[in-house]
Amino acid sequence: MRITALAGGIGGARFLRGLLDHVHADPALRESQITIIGNTGDDITLFGLRVCPDLDTLMYTIGDGIEESQGWGRRNDTRTVQGELAAYGGQPQWFGLGDLDFATHIVRSQWLGQGLTLSEVTGRLAQRWGLAQRGVTLLPMSDEPVETHVVVDDQEAGEGATQAIHFQQWWVGMGAGVPARAFHAIGIDRARPAPGVLEAIRTADVVLLPPSNPVVSIGIVLSVPGVRDALRGTSAPVVAVSPIVGGAPVRGHADACLAALGLPTTPEAVAGLYADFLDGWLVAPGEEHRVGGGVRLRAVPLLMRERESAARLAGDALSLGVELRAERA
Amino acid sequence: MRITALAGGIGGARFLRGLLDHVHADPALRESQITIIGNTGDDITLFGLRVCPDLDTLMYTIGDGIEESQGWGRRNDTRTVQGELAAYGGQPQWFGLGDLDFATHIVRSQWLGQGLTLSEVTGRLAQRWGLAQRGVTLLPMSDEPVETHVVVDDQEAGEGATQAIHFQQWWVGMGAGVPARAFHAIGIDRARPAPGVLEAIRTADVVLLPPSNPVVSIGIVLSVPGVRDALRGTSAPVVAVSPIVGGAPVRGHADACLAALGLPTTPEAVAGLYADFLDGWLVAPGEEHRVGGGVRLRAVPLLMRERESAARLAGDALSLGVELRAERA
Repeated sequence: MRITALAGGIGGARFLRGLLDHVHADPALRESQITIIGNTGDDITLFGLRVCPDLDTLMYTIGDGIEESQGWGRRNDTRTVQGELAAYGGQPQWFGLGDLDFATHIVRSQWLGQGLTLSEVTGRLAQRWGLAQRGVTLLPMSDEPVETHVVVDDQEAGEGATQAIHFQQWWVGMGAGVPARAFHAIGIDRARPAPGVLEAIRTADVVLLPPSNPVVSIGIVLSVPGVRDALRGTSAPVVAVSPIVGGAPVRGHADACLAALGLPTTPEAVAGLYADFLDGWLVAPGEEHRVGGGVRLRAVPLLMRERESAARLAGDALSLGVELRAERA
Repeated sequence: MRITALAGGIGGARFLRGLLDHVHADPALRESQITIIGNTGDDITLFGLRVCPDLDTLMYTIGDGIEESQGWGRRNDTRTVQGELAAYGGQPQWFGLGDLDFATHIVRSQWLGQGLTLSEVTGRLAQRWGLAQRGVTLLPMSDEPVETHVVVDDQEAGEGATQAIHFQQWWVGMGAGVPARAFHAIGIDRARPAPGVLEAIRTADVVLLPPSNPVVSIGIVLSVPGVRDALRGTSAPVVAVSPIVGGAPVRGHADACLAALGLPTTPEAVAGLYADFLDGWLVAPGEEHRVGGGVRLRAVPLLMRERESAARLAGDALSLGVELRAERA
C-alpha cells in the first residue's frame, strides 16, 4: 500500500505515528510505503540557524525522539545553549530550543550552506531517525523557502494600521492571542513542489490529510503551485480528518486561523476548504453534516489521547480510503 | 598606563590574566588600559559555525569563564550538542566544543552573517564577559579571515609528497605528532590590521609579547601587513617573554613549530624571530644568552603554575618595560 499524507506538526505527527502503529500491527499492511509531505511555512531562521518545526516534529515523533509532554522538541532536552545565547543578548527567547534540538538546526544549516537542498538535508536527517526502516519518506513541501506571515493590528501605529509578522512570532511568541487578519505565504509564488511530492500524490493508493491545522499547515502545503491540482487529479481517494470537535480545535489555534478567513470553527468550514479534492471525511460522532457530492462522511472518535487512539483513528481513515478505492476499481 | 599585548591562546591568556591581577593590585596601575591583539590564524569553520579559539580562550580566561583544568573552553561545560552532531554524522569530532561554547560560535556566526566585522562581533561578545570593566579591549589581529595551514608529508601519496591541512587538524586532530614542513597563513596577503590594532601598538606606553607560540600565534599576528612595522616604529618598549624553558616549550608544540622553520627550541631562536623590534627579553634563570644590540635581557621565573606566578611574571615583564621607557625619557 502506498500512502501519502500532507501534514503539519504535532497533530499530524501523532496521527502519522498512529498510522505506522496501525500498519505495522497488520501483516497485510506492514510493507506499506508512507510518504509524508510536511509543511515548511512555519520554518524560521533563528540565531542564524534554519529551524523547520513541522519537519522536526514529524521526524522526532516518528523516530521516537519526541518530548511527549509538549509534543515538540527532543525528549529530556536541556537548555544550555539557549540560556547562554540569552546571556549574549541573543533574540528571540520566546522560541524554545533545546541542546539536542540545536544540533539538528546546526547540521541542517551547515548542509544547506554547503548547497544541499532542503529535501536532501531532510533525507540525511531522517537517516539518524530510522525513517526509511519504518517505511517512511519525509519530504518538505518545497525546497524553496516559504515563510508564513500573519497580518495583525499594529496598535502602536494607530487605529486601522496593520503589520505582518512571522507566523512563529504570532503562534509561539503571542500564543495567537492577537487576531490574525490574514496569512501570507511569503515565497509561495516562486516555490515548486519538492522532488517526489507530486509523484507521491499521483501514484498513491490512498492520500490522507491528518487533523492538522487546515489554514496554516495543510493550507500552506495546498498553496504550493501544483499540489492542489495533483490532489484533484490523483486516482487515489483523498481522506481527511476534521481537526474540529465541539466547535473548537482539538489542539492549537485553528479557530483563530479560520476566523482570519471569515470562517466559523466547524467541520463544515474545514471540509469546504478541501471540497475540490475531498473523497472521504471523518468527523466526530454527533457532528455529521451535509457534505457535497461524492464525499463519503463517517463519524469516528477523533481524540488522540494516547498512541492507541491515534492508531485507531489513523486506521479508520485508512480503512475509509481503502473502501473508496475498492469501490472505484 | 597603556599596555598593548599580542597574544595566542592558553599561555597568552594566563599571562594576561596575570597582568590584570598585577595591575589591579597596584593603585598606581589600576586605571591601566590593556589592549590585546589576538591571533585569528587558528580560526576554523566547524559545523558551519565560525570558531575563534584564541579570541575565545582570551575572553573566557579574562572573563573568569575558562575551564581551568584544560585551559580552553567553558567551565563545567557539557557535550550534548556535539554528541548529537556525531549522531547525525557531523564531522569533525576531534575538536571539542561544549554546549556553552557552542552558544558563542552560534551568536558569532549569526552576527558575522548579518555583516558585522569580526572586531564588532568580538566587541559584542566581550560585553558578556565584562572585559571593558576590567580595562581590557580585545581586538582580532584582522577582520579578514586568515587561516594557518600546515604542510605535512602525505604518506598515502608517496615518498616526498606533501599536503596542506588546517592548523587545527594538525594541532588538535593530530596532536602535532606529524612533522610540520611549513606554515602558510592563508589570506594574510589580503588581511589588514583590524581597526585599532596599529594605533594600539603606536600609542602604547609598553608593548608586551606573552610566552605564546612564537611561530603559529605571535608569528601569525606579526605577519599581518603593517603590524611588524608598527612594532619597529613604536616609541613604546617591546618586552617579550620566552616560551622556552630547559629546551622545551612551557606548553604546546612550539618545538615542532620552530623545527618547521629549521630553528632549535631555544630562547635564542625565539629572540631571533623578534630581533628587529625587541627591547626587553625575559628568559628563565640559567638561560641567559647573548642578545643583539640594545635588547635588555633579564632572567626571572617563567613558569605560570598558578595565578600568582602568572601575575608575578607579568609584573616582571611590565616592570622591565617601564624601566626601559623611563630610560628613554
